Amino acid sequence: MTSAHEVVAAYWAAAEARDWEAFAALLADDVVYHGPQTREEVRGREAYIRFNVEGFRYDWHITVQQIVGEGQHAASWIEFTGQEGTQPGLCFFELADNGKIALITDFWPEPYELPASRAHLVGRY
Amino acid sequence: MTSAHEVVAAYWAAAEARDWEAFAALLADDVVYHGPQTREEVRGREAYIRFNVEGFRYDWHITVQQIVGEGQHAASWIEFTGQEGTQPGLCFFELADNGKIALITDFWPEPYELPASRAHLVGRY
Repeated sequence: MTSAHEVVAAYWAAAEARDWEAFAALLADDVVYHGPQTREEVRGREAYIRFNVEGFRYDWHITVQQIVGEGQHAASWIEFTGQEGTQPGLCFFELADNGKIALITDFWPEPYELPASRAHLVGRY
Repeated sequence: MTSAHEVVAAYWAAAEARDWEAFAALLADDVVYHGPQTREEVRGREAYIRFNVEGFRYDWHITVQQIVGEGQHAASWIEFTGQEGTQPGLCFFELADNGKIALITDFWPEPYELPASRAHLVGRY
């Protein structure tokens, strides 16, 4: 049995390689994708492949920063480089009993101004 | 030895309880906090406690959605309710060899408009 960590590593490697066959093989038939920031949802493997192929029609690249897996759960932190520069992407994954990815929850934080209320408590890097 | 998952569960429980003594006991002396979106940094246990106590002087609450731990790494997804409503918070943790939290990387994604380029590929929830 492949670990959740390995499944997510393979997921990002397949995405970066645009190997949609390998990517699809990691997904449950009824995989669900959630983007909580827009409340967007994609249901089903075929729709999710289409979302990835057709939703981002520009050159993009992924570097994995960290993957953490435990049982049927995993989280990843990637850096995504696309048309607007590089941005962190955080994903939480739930695997089905057969080891396929059943639920993906995907977050894209953006830069913001440091609040004055805590500026005296921090440095910058 | 306490697992990374348990350490992070205790970290959020102590924060929610404002039990700064228990919270401090989970941190390495030279813990580093990074907020990549503002590039803010806090170094050292004492400064990090002060950051948490003095940086957020309003009523706030945390609900843990998911914790994933593996070896000396963990990730958490919480929902933070503060003065501006409820927002997801994603953290990646690295533990020192003694099991104390050595590095915290903290992300706060915000709602944004669904891009028109993928609107035909998703539903909403």
